Amino acid sequence: MTAVDAPTLLAEVEQRIAQLAAPTGPHPVQAAAARAAAGGKLLRPRLVMAAAGRSADRDAVVAVAAAIELLHAALLVHDDVIDGDEERRGEPSVAREARDLAAEAGLAPARAERLGLAAAIVTGDALLVRAIASLGSLDAPSALRSRVLGIVTRAMVRAAEGEHDDVLLAGATPDHAAIDRILEGKTADYSFRAPLELGAVLGGRDDAAIAALGDIGLRMGVVYQLRDDVLGVFGDEAITGKSTLSDIRAGAPTLLSALASRDPAWASVASHYGDPGADEGAAARVRHVMRGSGALDEVERRIADGGDEVRALLVAAPVEQSVRDELLQILARCVERGR
Amino acid sequence: MTAVDAPTLLAEVEQRIAQLAAPTGPHPVQAAAARAAAGGKLLRPRLVMAAAGRSADRDAVVAVAAAIELLHAALLVHDDVIDGDEERRGEPSVAREARDLAAEAGLAPARAERLGLAAAIVTGDALLVRAIASLGSLDAPSALRSRVLGIVTRAMVRAAEGEHDDVLLAGATPDHAAIDRILEGKTADYSFRAPLELGAVLGGRDDAAIAALGDIGLRMGVVYQLRDDVLGVFGDEAITGKSTLSDIRAGAPTLLSALASRDPAWASVASHYGDPGADEGAAARVRHVMRGSGALDEVERRIADGGDEVRALLVAAPVEQSVRDELLQILARCVERGR
Repeated sequence: MTAVDAPTLLAEVEQRIAQLAAPTGPHPVQAAAARAAAGGKLLRPRLVMAAAGRSADRDAVVAVAAAIELLHAALLVHDDVIDGDEERRGEPSVAREARDLAAEAGLAPARAERLGLAAAIVTGDALLVRAIASLGSLDAPSALRSRVLGIVTRAMVRAAEGEHDDVLLAGATPDHAAIDRILEGKTADYSFRAPLELGAVLGGRDDAAIAALGDIGLRMGVVYQLRDDVLGVFGDEAITGKSTLSDIRAGAPTLLSALASRDPAWASVASHYGDPGADEGAAARVRHVMRGSGALDEVERRIADGGDEVRALLVAAPVEQSVRDELLQILARCVERGR
Repeated sequence: MTAVDAPTLLAEVEQRIAQLAAPTGPHPVQAAAARAAAGGKLLRPRLVMAAAGRSADRDAVVAVAAAIELLHAALLVHDDVIDGDEERRGEPSVAREARDLAAEAGLAPARAERLGLAAAIVTGDALLVRAIASLGSLDAPSALRSRVLGIVTRAMVRAAEGEHDDVLLAGATPDHAAIDRILEGKTADYSFRAPLELGAVLGGRDDAAIAALGDIGLRMGVVYQLRDDVLGVFGDEAITGKSTLSDIRAGAPTLLSALASRDPAWASVASHYGDPGADEGAAARVRHVMRGSGALDEVERRIADGGDEVRALLVAAPVEQSVRDELLQILARCVERGR
C-alpha cells in the first residue's frame, strides 16, 4: 500500500461499505440502512489507512476501514433520533423519512412518529450488527482479530457514554472534567483514537507505536470536536451545511458554553441556551456573550495549542515520515476546517 | 456435554453473560447494560444447547449461547423504547429508570424524557456491540465463525424488519402474508431458528440437519409467538407478569386481531384496538368479539396444529433422540405455557 494509491484504496473502502450495507431483501429498513451508509466523508477510513502504513495487508485495511465507517453511520442514525434531528448529510434523517412516508400512507401523526422512531432504531441496529460482524469475519490471526474487536468495543462503549452525557448535561454548565469526558467520549475515541489504533495494529506496529498513535488520535479528536463546537455556533451554514441554531437550542454542553457561563453577562442569555424555541435574535445574543466573555478566544486558543501538541507528538512518534505527513494533513483539516 | 449436566452448562452461560455485560467503568450506561443483561429465562441458550448435542465443543456452546441471550437483551431494551414500555422483567425499563433518576436530579420533564430515550438507545447499542464482538472473538475455525456470524446477522436484520412492521401495521388489519412475516420476523428467526441453527453448526451437523433444525425452529417460533399473542390479551396477568391491556392499546397486528377483524362485530370495537386510552371495559369488549368471532378458537387450533407439525418434523429430523426429547420439552412449554 503506498500513499500514491490512497484514492484507489479509498474507492475500495467505499465499495466495501456499499457491499456491507447492501439490502439482502426488499424491506424498507434495508433500503434505509443502505442509504444511511452512503455519503460520508470517510474521515475514519482515512485515519485507519494513514496509521496502517504501506506494509499492512491491503484487504484487512479495507475491511476494517469500511467497518469503522459503517459503525459511524449507525451511530449517526441513532444520534439523530436522540437529538430529534430531521436532516443528515442534506437528506431527511431515517426517522423523518419513515415518518413522512407513513404519514403520506395515511397513518395518524402519533403513529407515524412512532414508526419513524422504530425505523431509525432498528436501521441503526442492523448497521451496527453488520459492521461488527464484518470485523468478526476478518480473515486474520485470532489474536489480531480479538485486538481489533477489543478496540472497537471499548470505543463504542465510550461513545455510548459520551452520547448519554451530552444529553444529561445539555443546558447545564458542566465542570472541566465533565467537558473533557464529553469531548473524549462522544467523538475522539471512536472517530480518532480507535481508527489510528486499528491502523497501527493492522500495520503490525509495536505496542509503543500503537499507544503513541492512540494518544495522538485522542488529542486530534478533541481538537476536532472543539472546532466542531465553534462551527456549530459561529460557522457559515452555507459551508457547514448545519444550522448554527441547533447547538444553542439543544443547549449543547461544550467548552464554549461552559466558559461563557462563567461570565456575569451569561445570566442575560442563559435561558436561551437549551431553549428549543430560541430564534436567530436569541442566538445572536448568546454568540455576543460567547465572544465578549472571551470564551470563543479561549476555545480557539485551545484548538491552536492542541494542534501544536499533536504536531510535537507526531514528530516524536515511532512511525514513518509518510504517516506523519498524512496525519498532519488531516490535523490541518481538523483545525482549520470551515465545515 | 451431556443432558445430565445441562443445569451446570446453563449456569456457565449465565456467568458468561454477566462477564460480557460487566461494567468496565463507573458510567450509568454500563450499570444499565449489566442490569438489562440479567434475569432472562435463557430460552435461546437452551435452544443452542439442545441443538448442539453432546459432542459439541463446550466452550463454544457457552460463548454462543451467552452472546445470543445478550443480543436478546439488547433488542428488548430497544423494543421497550419503541413500544414506550416502562417495565421489563418486573423492573423499570432502562428508559424509565434513566428518566426518573434525571427527574429526581432536577431535570425538566422534557429533558428527563430525552435522557431516558438516549440512555436506552445507547445501552442497547453497547449490548449489541459486546454480543457480536464476543462472537467475532470466538476461538473457532474461520469458516465456522463466519457461519455463526452469518446466521446471527440474518436473524438480526430479520428482527429489525419485524419490529418495524409491528409498528407499521399496528391497529391495521394486515393480510395473512403480512401476519406471517411479522410472526416469523419479529421473534421466530432470532429466538428459535437462529439458536437451533447455531447449535447445529457448533455440533458439527451436516447441512441437511442444520436446515431441518432451522425449519423446526422457525415453526416453533411461530407457535411461541401465537401463544404469546393469546396470552397478551387473554393471559392471567398474575402469571404472565404482563398487562393484558398493552397489546390492545398498541393495536398489536396479530393473527388474533386480523381474524377477529373479519367479523362484522369488529366494527363495534375497532376504535378500541390501538387506542392508547383503552380501559378494562373496552378491552373486555374486544376480547368478547375475539371469542365470539371464533378468532381465538382458530388461533388455538393453529397453535395445536403447529405443535403437531413440529413434532412430526422432529421425529423425521436427522438428530439424536436426546435432541428430539429436549426440543419436545421446550415445544411443550411454548404451546402449553401460561406465561
